Amino acid sequence: MSTTETQIRLAKRVAGLPGDDAWSTTHDAVIEPAEGEISVAVDYISLDPAMRGWMNEGRSYIEPVELGAVMRAGGVGKIVASAADGFSAGDYVVGMTGTQTHYTGPTTDFMKVDPELAPLPHYLGTLGMTGMTAYFGLLDVGKPQEGETVLVSAAAGAVGSITGQIAKIKGCRAVGLAGGAEKCRFVIDELGFDDCIDYKNEDVGKAVRRTCPDRVDVYFDNVGGGILEAALQNLNTKGRIVLCGAISQYNATDIGSSTGPRNYMNLLVSRGTMEGFVVFDYAARYREAMAAMASWMNAGKLRSKEHVVEGIESFPAALRMLFAGENTGKLMIKV
Amino acid sequence: MSTTETQIRLAKRVAGLPGDDAWSTTHDAVIEPAEGEISVAVDYISLDPAMRGWMNEGRSYIEPVELGAVMRAGGVGKIVASAADGFSAGDYVVGMTGTQTHYTGPTTDFMKVDPELAPLPHYLGTLGMTGMTAYFGLLDVGKPQEGETVLVSAAAGAVGSITGQIAKIKGCRAVGLAGGAEKCRFVIDELGFDDCIDYKNEDVGKAVRRTCPDRVDVYFDNVGGGILEAALQNLNTKGRIVLCGAISQYNATDIGSSTGPRNYMNLLVSRGTMEGFVVFDYAARYREAMAAMASWMNAGKLRSKEHVVEGIESFPAALRMLFAGENTGKLMIKV
Repeated sequence: MSTTETQIRLAKRVAGLPGDDAWSTTHDAVIEPAEGEISVAVDYISLDPAMRGWMNEGRSYIEPVELGAVMRAGGVGKIVASAADGFSAGDYVVGMTGTQTHYTGPTTDFMKVDPELAPLPHYLGTLGMTGMTAYFGLLDVGKPQEGETVLVSAAAGAVGSITGQIAKIKGCRAVGLAGGAEKCRFVIDELGFDDCIDYKNEDVGKAVRRTCPDRVDVYFDNVGGGILEAALQNLNTKGRIVLCGAISQYNATDIGSSTGPRNYMNLLVSRGTMEGFVVFDYAARYREAMAAMASWMNAGKLRSKEHVVEGIESFPAALRMLFAGENTGKLMIKV
Repeated sequence: MSTTETQIRLAKRVAGLPGDDAWSTTHDAVIEPAEGEISVAVDYISLDPAMRGWMNEGRSYIEPVELGAVMRAGGVGKIVASAADGFSAGDYVVGMTGTQTHYTGPTTDFMKVDPELAPLPHYLGTLGMTGMTAYFGLLDVGKPQEGETVLVSAAAGAVGSITGQIAKIKGCRAVGLAGGAEKCRFVIDELGFDDCIDYKNEDVGKAVRRTCPDRVDVYFDNVGGGILEAALQNLNTKGRIVLCGAISQYNATDIGSSTGPRNYMNLLVSRGTMEGFVVFDYAARYREAMAAMASWMNAGKLRSKEHVVEGIESFPAALRMLFAGENTGKLMIKV
């Protein structure tokens, strides 16, 4: 085990898009695992929109990252030393490793994974939190029925790309929204969505009407803002809006610069529902979802797309890429 | 039957609060009922926030009132002539009579009522659409459980005053919001709510925290705006927001001057739901609700409060009273 490793720590609370100065890099020695703990050499680290919320103080579904602490992140890697029952050196695991080259700590919520069954990056993507979010958000919260129309924002992104593919597997019409012609082609040609709206070059309201002539039964929202309003405007009777994220709002500097959906009362007109969820609540069912996703991947019905950036030092810039929508598929760092 | 009667008609589409010029008054002759129709001398006409939406063009849960047509309204009165099976002269009925002294037309959705069992105004209030809205919105959409906290805006208003009383009957803690100390006293002392926030003289966010120490399980929203945001901020895990109305928004002149709840993503933090409903969808169950409400009234558990304005000519001013929150209880006109 090398004795010094690299950690990315939260240096300060920031307003808006986090600059390089939000972070500090440390090179602390790796500590040995205590009783019940494991030490993991991290291979890949997941970048997620939710990270922006974890950087802020205040009530949320999870505690904020403390100033000076290693930035919270999901990761996958190999155990280099273990003092925990059921985990051995050489095992591969996925869990909340933090943004660092080595994790040493308890095994809470860590799962062993098999690199022979699927490439390691898949365990952060389709078979990881990203896939779990798409699976439970769409199926348990959105409850799509065969033949219904499912609209998905950030359709070329990590969660969106999987959500639309699951909708197709369930016999729905899947329509995506993505930024730019190239991403739209990817969404239709490679992911198999029925249609895709280029929100950067089309009037979104008109485009939703055009691509969803029977209105929207389930809208899976990753972005908020004007796209959420367009979905509300076109929501079918008893339509469901699944609130997964609001990436357009995460870097708002205060509530005054946030925008809520001005036409939320369309929920009354449509007798509709808008519901939030947190994937961690479904932890007891991750295995069920992973099995379903793996079988769909093996059957060639579900494609996993990763966007890999090299080097842990690239974390601050990679996080900004995510908010600029510059990734296609699941964004992660190869350590 | 007198030969000329009075009708209030929609004269033009307006932006904002409707002035007197939105209306025209006509004095047309009463026509005889055709086969299947009834003619009703209207005694009381209901004033409802929903009327503002009916005045606008565009998609909603119900067709807009056409220009030149008698303004849509619920009313209660006595049949003076009948050519419809099951309805006789002398019967009292409640239904969509329109804002006029006489209704002649089909019996669609008209119900016979007994003025001996309850005073006529009750059939527009607690035993009418107002009561149905509170009953189905709270019980079927909000699904309050015993011991939960139910927060109700416009608690001194028609729907809100009933909603909070039903919450108490179901064993919940009921907290209201109303404008001014006098209304708050009414809500606590006469309606039996556990607490009431004077939103005109208190910081609403702090007041919700103070009065709902275990957070809000069900928020029954009649108003939208900053009060909806305060409820979102204090929503309990798995909390439910029932969208019944948004009176603070109805006179917005366009979507640009509307405000959506900026903190709607608290639905994610709380794993909460925001759901709209339309009372007309529950028409098949009105009798069930009326029976329950009548039994609660007879048992002294549910108080009906009406605010009666005299004369059909007062309709334009009375409608503005409603939006200024100047009524306590169900606002109606005695013809």
